[in-house]
Amino acid sequence: MINYDSFLSRRGLDMQGSAIRRIGALSAGIPDMISFAPGYPDPAVTPWADFREIASGLLSGSDSEVLQYGPTRGHAPLLDAVTSILAERGIRASREELLVTTGSQQALDLAARVLCDPGDVVIVELPTYTGALAAFRDAQAELVGVRQDADGINLEDLEAVVKRERRAGKRVGCLYVVPNFQNPAGLLMGLEKRRRLLETASRLDLLLVEDDPYGALYFDDADAPLTRPIKAADDDGRVLYLSSFSKTLAAGFRVAWIAAPAPLVAKFDVAKQAADLCSGALDQRMVYEAWKRGVLAAGVPRLRAHYRHKRETIERAMRATLDGVLSWRTPRGGFFILASLPEDLNGEDLLQPAIAERVVFVAGAPFFVDGSGRNTIRLSFSLPAPDRIVEGVNRLARVIRQALERR
Amino acid sequence: MINYDSFLSRRGLDMQGSAIRRIGALSAGIPDMISFAPGYPDPAVTPWADFREIASGLLSGSDSEVLQYGPTRGHAPLLDAVTSILAERGIRASREELLVTTGSQQALDLAARVLCDPGDVVIVELPTYTGALAAFRDAQAELVGVRQDADGINLEDLEAVVKRERRAGKRVGCLYVVPNFQNPAGLLMGLEKRRRLLETASRLDLLLVEDDPYGALYFDDADAPLTRPIKAADDDGRVLYLSSFSKTLAAGFRVAWIAAPAPLVAKFDVAKQAADLCSGALDQRMVYEAWKRGVLAAGVPRLRAHYRHKRETIERAMRATLDGVLSWRTPRGGFFILASLPEDLNGEDLLQPAIAERVVFVAGAPFFVDGSGRNTIRLSFSLPAPDRIVEGVNRLARVIRQALERR
Repeated sequence: MINYDSFLSRRGLDMQGSAIRRIGALSAGIPDMISFAPGYPDPAVTPWADFREIASGLLSGSDSEVLQYGPTRGHAPLLDAVTSILAERGIRASREELLVTTGSQQALDLAARVLCDPGDVVIVELPTYTGALAAFRDAQAELVGVRQDADGINLEDLEAVVKRERRAGKRVGCLYVVPNFQNPAGLLMGLEKRRRLLETASRLDLLLVEDDPYGALYFDDADAPLTRPIKAADDDGRVLYLSSFSKTLAAGFRVAWIAAPAPLVAKFDVAKQAADLCSGALDQRMVYEAWKRGVLAAGVPRLRAHYRHKRETIERAMRATLDGVLSWRTPRGGFFILASLPEDLNGEDLLQPAIAERVVFVAGAPFFVDGSGRNTIRLSFSLPAPDRIVEGVNRLARVIRQALERR
Repeated sequence: MINYDSFLSRRGLDMQGSAIRRIGALSAGIPDMISFAPGYPDPAVTPWADFREIASGLLSGSDSEVLQYGPTRGHAPLLDAVTSILAERGIRASREELLVTTGSQQALDLAARVLCDPGDVVIVELPTYTGALAAFRDAQAELVGVRQDADGINLEDLEAVVKRERRAGKRVGCLYVVPNFQNPAGLLMGLEKRRRLLETASRLDLLLVEDDPYGALYFDDADAPLTRPIKAADDDGRVLYLSSFSKTLAAGFRVAWIAAPAPLVAKFDVAKQAADLCSGALDQRMVYEAWKRGVLAAGVPRLRAHYRHKRETIERAMRATLDGVLSWRTPRGGFFILASLPEDLNGEDLLQPAIAERVVFVAGAPFFVDGSGRNTIRLSFSLPAPDRIVEGVNRLARVIRQALERR
């Protein structure tokens, strides 16, 4: 029997699976399970008929490129569509500043490859998205967290952390932020905070990796101007802006993009050649056609209403059953609520009893790189139907009340 | 203006684009260009009507998972289909030994991440596939070449190289081989050579990365038993076997797989979570349905005849116009001929005059990690129609004859 450990690279030895994916495996296949775990878009609002019609046209055989290898940068018409989408968000990006990626996860991976040597420090929010943590960890970067206030990252803490790490001899090159309806905390970074963050990044000479999968999905207590990307004010070329069609069209296409200064995009292009040569040809065309035919534009307002209703449903149910037990900030868009349990409860400890009650969530701790957040849980309200949300919260309330009684 | 170099990782600084992709960019958009450059499958033999029907069924909306995020390992029915395909090739693989990848390029990338530390030696054939070189280089591995004979890798040279590198203190963990109709040399590794290679790998304690995108595409001067994978005899669990649907169904789906010992696949799974979470959901189902409905099985014999005819066409044209000038080994399958020019001609030098004549190929040198092969060119005969192949060879002959006259 071969001992494979001797063949593994250091990062191969270090690799740990995603907590979210592990929960998925644990709870999969159990009948009547209600899952608040994955940040999945709701297929009930997928424009199936449009996609069926688009696919039928694309697969007529009249365009031989539809199922062929394509350019690493992405399907050219899709790149131009992205330019238009970005313009609506206040961002100017030429073709040389764009690359289509196989989901935003790949954009994170490419950024980590191109920017991080082993031991380099990457600054992240407390808490932050675990997929980004996975990508930076895979590059053997060291992750250091910065506190968040209600309006986003705390700039005094950011400055202190960067200076402390640099004094310790660390290379600190980039900061990863999710300003719009952050995963997992649901926070919306304030406009003034965005302006000052860019100033601070400039003063500290940091690159900003701005991840924006949820910006279009604001609810009626927010609006488009409040979600204006930091990249829109990026005169220096300091911001790498990531966004995606996964939450607004369909996640299964694996089509996202990165907008960044041309010299960096040239590197991402080379890194992507090594990673997967090119993203799916049919997928990119499906997305492009959905944009061109107005399916995306028509769908997004519906998505806002759809997910807003789910947020209201889950908050109402939480208030009804867990008032004074759970505390949370109301997300003004996106898919997530990060709820705090009483200090002495651990989200991880609730998972097995929750699965026994046929409800599941993600424990908050893996989102916090400093080991805090053990008493938090992330509830994604995007996927379950409203009646299932209510029933799921009822089950969760039973689990939490039992844990409180046992302590 | 920001100097981005100071933000780049060492591998970011080192990154160089693919020679093949660069040629593609140089020659793209020139009217009447005949390209022998990319190893693209011919869309003329794509089963468009089948795919159209499959897509229409999948996108009915009845299965809400079709456009959703999916398991990192891959769509479960597709994994079972791969088990059947592998069984036909003499390979037994359970679900725990399989992972779907976003094209074989991703399998190479995952292998490089999981197995290679910076400075580790990876052994490759002379010449070998540049995509594999890109993946291993991205992991900052050092690539060391081993000579090939007509029946594949030279085992005496392999042993000498491994021992030399280890004496020099290098970690030498794996060997990358393409036994079936190798890209770029078109070689078919002999069965006895395969057996002895596995023995040698065992004795030297090497893992084998066996890349097999072309095995099903043998011509009438070969047959299935001659393409039997090395993995079929892998009792030790020493072989990582890569294969793909890109050359037999469609490259645009980006659906391929890796079969390897379960402990390594568990690591690839984690690495893939960081790389792109999961491969395309629709793409995997399109491929699965094409397999299930017999589209793949019915298509492959047609592909063999189709590409064999193209090989005959290009060889006949080459013999007619370049006899005694070019030399090459007849490929018994696959997409490629590696032709040698007279010793004092450089393939790279012919590219500009060739593009001026509206024909293009790939210079051979980038496929050779030892700096040799400067007088070789790779001609891919898979994509152009037969009459274009003949015309392309005529143009190439003019370019080469002019170069010979000028020297």
